[in-house]
Amino acid sequence: MEKVKPRTLTGFMELLPNEQIEFDRFIDILRSNYIKYGFYPLDTPVLESSAVLLAKAGGETEQQIYRFKKGDTDLTMRFDLTVPLAKYVALNYNELNFPFKRYQIGKVYRGERAQKGRFREFYQADIDIIGDGELSIIHDAEIPSIIYDIFRSLGIGGFKIRINNRKLLTGFFEIKQLSDNVENVLRIVDKLDKIGAEKVTAELGTIGVSAETAADILDFVNTNGSNKERLAAAEKYAGQNETYDAGLSELKMVAQTVKLFGVPEENFVIDFAIARGLDYYTGTVYETVITDHPEFGSVCSGGRYDNLAEYYTDKKLPGVGISIGATRLFSVLKESGFFNFGKTSPVDALIIPMTQNIEYCINAMTALRKAGVRVQTYFEDKKLKKKMTYANRINAPYAVLIGDDEIAAGKVALKDLETGEQSVCTAEEAARIILG
Amino acid sequence: MEKVKPRTLTGFMELLPNEQIEFDRFIDILRSNYIKYGFYPLDTPVLESSAVLLAKAGGETEQQIYRFKKGDTDLTMRFDLTVPLAKYVALNYNELNFPFKRYQIGKVYRGERAQKGRFREFYQADIDIIGDGELSIIHDAEIPSIIYDIFRSLGIGGFKIRINNRKLLTGFFEIKQLSDNVENVLRIVDKLDKIGAEKVTAELGTIGVSAETAADILDFVNTNGSNKERLAAAEKYAGQNETYDAGLSELKMVAQTVKLFGVPEENFVIDFAIARGLDYYTGTVYETVITDHPEFGSVCSGGRYDNLAEYYTDKKLPGVGISIGATRLFSVLKESGFFNFGKTSPVDALIIPMTQNIEYCINAMTALRKAGVRVQTYFEDKKLKKKMTYANRINAPYAVLIGDDEIAAGKVALKDLETGEQSVCTAEEAARIILG
Repeated sequence: MEKVKPRTLTGFMELLPNEQIEFDRFIDILRSNYIKYGFYPLDTPVLESSAVLLAKAGGETEQQIYRFKKGDTDLTMRFDLTVPLAKYVALNYNELNFPFKRYQIGKVYRGERAQKGRFREFYQADIDIIGDGELSIIHDAEIPSIIYDIFRSLGIGGFKIRINNRKLLTGFFEIKQLSDNVENVLRIVDKLDKIGAEKVTAELGTIGVSAETAADILDFVNTNGSNKERLAAAEKYAGQNETYDAGLSELKMVAQTVKLFGVPEENFVIDFAIARGLDYYTGTVYETVITDHPEFGSVCSGGRYDNLAEYYTDKKLPGVGISIGATRLFSVLKESGFFNFGKTSPVDALIIPMTQNIEYCINAMTALRKAGVRVQTYFEDKKLKKKMTYANRINAPYAVLIGDDEIAAGKVALKDLETGEQSVCTAEEAARIILG
Repeated sequence: MEKVKPRTLTGFMELLPNEQIEFDRFIDILRSNYIKYGFYPLDTPVLESSAVLLAKAGGETEQQIYRFKKGDTDLTMRFDLTVPLAKYVALNYNELNFPFKRYQIGKVYRGERAQKGRFREFYQADIDIIGDGELSIIHDAEIPSIIYDIFRSLGIGGFKIRINNRKLLTGFFEIKQLSDNVENVLRIVDKLDKIGAEKVTAELGTIGVSAETAADILDFVNTNGSNKERLAAAEKYAGQNETYDAGLSELKMVAQTVKLFGVPEENFVIDFAIARGLDYYTGTVYETVITDHPEFGSVCSGGRYDNLAEYYTDKKLPGVGISIGATRLFSVLKESGFFNFGKTSPVDALIIPMTQNIEYCINAMTALRKAGVRVQTYFEDKKLKKKMTYANRINAPYAVLIGDDEIAAGKVALKDLETGEQSVCTAEEAARIILG
């Protein structure tokens, strides 16, 4: 038979078995934290009607999406989890209880040009809290607490949640007489981390911002010191612009409440340079950076918005949410040597029969499983050496050796494959040792 | 702004929040059982190259699949999890350890005509054990043990795992001089449950099977009694055909070993009428029916095959596996009233502030979360009645009421929302009561 060469498409992450175990653990940490905070799960289709999914774009085809026809139906693969959420809330408005807190962890699709670190299929892990008409700002302060718990659970040592408020920034630019140019100024200032102060000043010049005003802007967004000092520095512009004052008041409230949630100041920084995109966010905005790896960029971002579902409904549905690009975060952590795949195993123990008495081996395996041990038996008819090689290659921490001597004694021989230590005990005792 | 009508495509399951909690629990049960048996997780892309995914079909477009072009790339959405597994094993052969045990729970896509109970996007939950060249038959006997554990964990009372062997059936038809017609005969006999004995006899007649032979066939596939009696009945054809004898020997071995795994005879039936498709399976075959709902058909099927990846590699990779159509099974169980969504909640308790002291409420919430309670706080500035309505609508089992009296005493008021009972205690004591 002629063979087809097996391959996986570029930009589609497909892990080796050990890596997949770690990825699943990683996702479980996100999920269990979201659940602890009382979020509902949600699982929307990967495929949606193009008219629905591209409502914002007016149904136009975009280069970056997977869109196609099946018969007469115009279909698009979801490119994020926010648009499906908007559709879901508009569609099920009468069935939902507000504030509606939901998490969704799922794959999204973007037909981007293939390049290192860019994925075409990747997991996003989102949470959003949606209000009906209004939504308490305390939710804005709970979000950093969730991010903090997740990054702590992941075992990532140093990380900083950076927070700002879009109203504060917009108000500031209005004070600086840049009202007509707020979006352009924001876009340029957002590049500060990447291109540096000098180039930002030059670019601001091209849209008519004077060198003096540019210096004021840079001075403002570079405000440093403790969070208290940063807020104090922001006070000096207070009283000139309503939007600015509203933003400052929100930011103070959020910063103060985040503390109540137990997030330490070393992990939570007010940063006037954070802008997050241009037109969606309307209040609090978040980014999260890993201190040892600033090159990863923001690994968890989001913010407050006024209208989740304006393309589908007249209802005013304000919300606040974050998204973790799980595939990308896993991938960069993996490359930085964060995971120890050599210790990862699908089992806690492997049973190795050295007897024809399969019944005894099966009984031992059943007893171990009942005790909560992840276990399999090497049933193939091979030499002991081959069996031990398999145990080592799947990184089994323990081998449970069963020969006719053990059977006669009603026991098993438990071998710690790291230390080489071996002891003879009952299956139940073995389970206790294995589970530590 | 003109609105787009929000909708979800026909054939794509999208659940309400409470239903989604139960679906996730359902999937968790499958997953935790697969893990207990030592299977590796696997997660392959939803999109693959059409040439790879349709290798078996020779790259031809099939009506039932989602296939499209993006630029020059011919893409297909996976329609099962078996073909991606075959690709994966062929591609990563040198990195894998055999027997390679993997589970995969993921969405697959079939562009079928929309009809009740048919899904276009649905979860499959598969396990397979792949050998390198050969694979012990004991794995065939472990599979029913996994099915048994899963259906018991799901709380489905009566179910029967029906088992047969393709060699036995093929051999039987050869004995009956139907060698040239085995596939057609199998196809017709497979319909016995649906169309009955009379129509099967008639259809067999149209392909030249005499009434007498048809009676023999029906007599054979209808063999009943205990498993022991059924195997004894099969003995009477032994010694005439090698394939038959090999099948009978395998079936006896599997039946005997399944018992060792602790699967009771009431849940495990040898059934000579089970055939499972036409050309893929080569030995043991399984179906699973829910006793109270035979109309669901088989909810968990699979079997033994000789060559997993023959379209991609010359390596002989025999395997045995099963697939649970998770979306369909969940959907029929839901319709039969199996789930109690009215008791399902995203929280174990809801904190209801009746004070301006938000700090105290947040501290209580943090203490409850630390103790493992899924909890949220109703932060919106509403009347108490509205807050209690929210608690009831999300089915919170407990409300934790915090007013200035409780704060002065350093306590909370814990209200059981089912019984209406209320007690005043510390947050830690509340956690113990809530977690029961």
